[in-house]
Amino acid sequence: MIRIVFFIFLFISVNSFSQSDKQVIKKIFDSSLSESISYELLDYLSNEIGGRLSGSLNAEKAVKWGKKELENIGFDRVWLQNVLVPKWVRGPKEFALIETQPGITFNVDVCALGGSVATPSVGIKAKVLEVSNFEELKILGKEKIDGKIVFFNRPMQSNVVNTFQAYGDAVNQRVNGAVEAVKYGAIGVIVRSMTLRLDDFPHTGVMSYGNLTQSKKIPAAAISTNSAEKLSDLLKINPNLKFLLRQQCKEFDDVISHNVIAEIKGSEFPNEIILVGGHLDSWDLGDGSHDDGAGIVQSMDVINILKKIGYRPKRTIRVVLYMNEENGQRGAKKYFDISKKNNLNHIFAIESDAGGFSPRGFSFTTNDKNFEQIESWKKLFEPYLIHSFERGGSGADISILKTNKNVLAGLRPDSQRYFDYHHASNDTFDKINKRELELGTFAITSLIYLFDKYGLNN
Amino acid sequence: MIRIVFFIFLFISVNSFSQSDKQVIKKIFDSSLSESISYELLDYLSNEIGGRLSGSLNAEKAVKWGKKELENIGFDRVWLQNVLVPKWVRGPKEFALIETQPGITFNVDVCALGGSVATPSVGIKAKVLEVSNFEELKILGKEKIDGKIVFFNRPMQSNVVNTFQAYGDAVNQRVNGAVEAVKYGAIGVIVRSMTLRLDDFPHTGVMSYGNLTQSKKIPAAAISTNSAEKLSDLLKINPNLKFLLRQQCKEFDDVISHNVIAEIKGSEFPNEIILVGGHLDSWDLGDGSHDDGAGIVQSMDVINILKKIGYRPKRTIRVVLYMNEENGQRGAKKYFDISKKNNLNHIFAIESDAGGFSPRGFSFTTNDKNFEQIESWKKLFEPYLIHSFERGGSGADISILKTNKNVLAGLRPDSQRYFDYHHASNDTFDKINKRELELGTFAITSLIYLFDKYGLNN
Repeated sequence: MIRIVFFIFLFISVNSFSQSDKQVIKKIFDSSLSESISYELLDYLSNEIGGRLSGSLNAEKAVKWGKKELENIGFDRVWLQNVLVPKWVRGPKEFALIETQPGITFNVDVCALGGSVATPSVGIKAKVLEVSNFEELKILGKEKIDGKIVFFNRPMQSNVVNTFQAYGDAVNQRVNGAVEAVKYGAIGVIVRSMTLRLDDFPHTGVMSYGNLTQSKKIPAAAISTNSAEKLSDLLKINPNLKFLLRQQCKEFDDVISHNVIAEIKGSEFPNEIILVGGHLDSWDLGDGSHDDGAGIVQSMDVINILKKIGYRPKRTIRVVLYMNEENGQRGAKKYFDISKKNNLNHIFAIESDAGGFSPRGFSFTTNDKNFEQIESWKKLFEPYLIHSFERGGSGADISILKTNKNVLAGLRPDSQRYFDYHHASNDTFDKINKRELELGTFAITSLIYLFDKYGLNN
Repeated sequence: MIRIVFFIFLFISVNSFSQSDKQVIKKIFDSSLSESISYELLDYLSNEIGGRLSGSLNAEKAVKWGKKELENIGFDRVWLQNVLVPKWVRGPKEFALIETQPGITFNVDVCALGGSVATPSVGIKAKVLEVSNFEELKILGKEKIDGKIVFFNRPMQSNVVNTFQAYGDAVNQRVNGAVEAVKYGAIGVIVRSMTLRLDDFPHTGVMSYGNLTQSKKIPAAAISTNSAEKLSDLLKINPNLKFLLRQQCKEFDDVISHNVIAEIKGSEFPNEIILVGGHLDSWDLGDGSHDDGAGIVQSMDVINILKKIGYRPKRTIRVVLYMNEENGQRGAKKYFDISKKNNLNHIFAIESDAGGFSPRGFSFTTNDKNFEQIESWKKLFEPYLIHSFERGGSGADISILKTNKNVLAGLRPDSQRYFDYHHASNDTFDKINKRELELGTFAITSLIYLFDKYGLNN
């Protein structure tokens, strides 16, 4: 009996989509690979606007551009949501060198971490202590660390398939390195760049001082992996070498910025909202093509594609271009607060913030019932090799929208090259492959189509 | 009853690998991502030797290099197999322009197709007829075509996931365009480059004159997609424009070249041969990093990795660096002839000749029984996202080894970017991502491990 039930269940499960879904998804595919506007939009955002850190002039240019382009695509409503964001400015290019003995120096590639304080205008110059983790700091103690620059040099692990996992395992050095090192009297920290390559690009990214008062904060910088290797090698020869770091970054008062939101009202279930988004801000070093220009233009393109194939959504579809994902997630919080106040029901939200690479599948945060339905759709994505469906996180900006009933998802592109460019000056438009970007647009649009058609499974 | 049998079958099938296989494959993974020599080998082959068309000095340098490096890795035996190969030489850079009226010209990017004859030294200059396929030639007929240059401009289809399929659907223009056009009196052919991008790189590749005598052969060249678009646009304005093409390529007598072969004798079944290979020759425009330097170094690396993890093969493993895949497949034929003469039993052969991109799975040519076993291994590859197992072709050099009993396989990397570089001057080492290349090495080595351990399923 149990077996028979099992068979019936399987049967329902495997067939919870129709032949026509296959056809619609093929139409979405054809349209995405021939009528997509993703690449063209990204060309403008990356090459005409460029890097757009929260609080910058470029970020506001991006807001205006996003609003105008969404209006061109043709939504029922496009609006801005005020968001108070931090304003941190890098200042002139940072400078650093290794001095093995007076007069013998080696230049190295560094950049200030996002949110770091400046050094004095002449820089800081001190001995360097290389460590791999916070436990080593504890063992070395104040005596050995006091007055020195701490050099965090634990590489991202190469032997994990998902490079985001390797990033997650290494990034505490960047985020909390300064606040941990200062406990033992360090006067600055240098952090190995979060990338799996050996190259000359320092990778910035957010860091935190926790509850430190202004006077206790020490400067924090990223060092390129090649420079990190050189520093480590030279330290083995001469543990007394000195490191000079000069950076003039500065935190200003918060300024007003904006989330950009566009909406098409659902024809049957207008109160069930499907959200698609990415973040409009980027770091300042590159032009933010992969992080997260790709997610922005894919999100914007969804309604363009659905219009092209003549599909009218039954549920309300919202595009949200979030501000300030990189250093504060203030846009996400603001969007959530207003949604909560208005009792909005987000049945499905999907975020694209893992680069514009060839899509492999999705990661889902949801309950078992919904995941059953989702798994039954997997076959529809198999012909396109986008069939790695897993349970896990969704995205930094949408995760706050989680309820017991809804579904959150993240697009999962191939992750191998993501950290080659992440938060570095080489995250530029020429690293984008048009087809790979469009395949992502296709994947997102198809999943939205299915949720629009079938809704939730509970 | 039938259902019960089904369950038992599933049970056996799902479990035809052991826990220890999982562990061995994880070891192979760790080693491939940290001790691989693939990237280093390819750096030398691409940057120190470079493009290596059959019959060229560089091809012979590559043969010597391959033999020496295989000896360094430590095989039981490394040897060369003589292969008579064609020797076609491009000569000075080709030149072409569009003349819309006397004195008004537009330069365009072209290259001779492999095997084409030269133009007269001053070039050919004639009106152009744009067509999409051979049927149009027939309809237009001798009257309209005679004395003109035929311009084949059918683009590769964007709306197929597998770009090799799009290539297969378009490449007859390049291979047979000249021999078809000459039937109607054409004096030359220009073929739109086989790529899905719009850019300025002409893509070469093999073409055939069928049984034409020397005097009947007409020059054939590839034109970049941007130039093809320009030519097509200008033809719409002025169908009488003229096209000048000058190329000085030349076919010489065949010369001796070599397959490079290395072997480790199996400890238990020395007569069962497992072959892994790619092709050592490349086109002359780029350095052949993706086509097929990647496949060469991955093949060479397999035994390095197996040695690193301390695995001793039960079956004989052969690495074959084939010569002359690009314009003749003479190496493959020679290898097959000698194998046949010696009654060699290749139970499994795998070829990597689809670029050094992130691997998605394999394609298999085999019988049902073997494929059952192969499918049961799929779960081992799932954690690495290399689980797209399909039946289909294997590779150009190994397909000739097919028997009723054996298994042939091709590594299937993500294909989206392959034709951006294929046979063009931008197929260079900087387009290789180290991790993606190493993941391919891992995939191949793991599959070889499984075939070595379990043999065939019949």
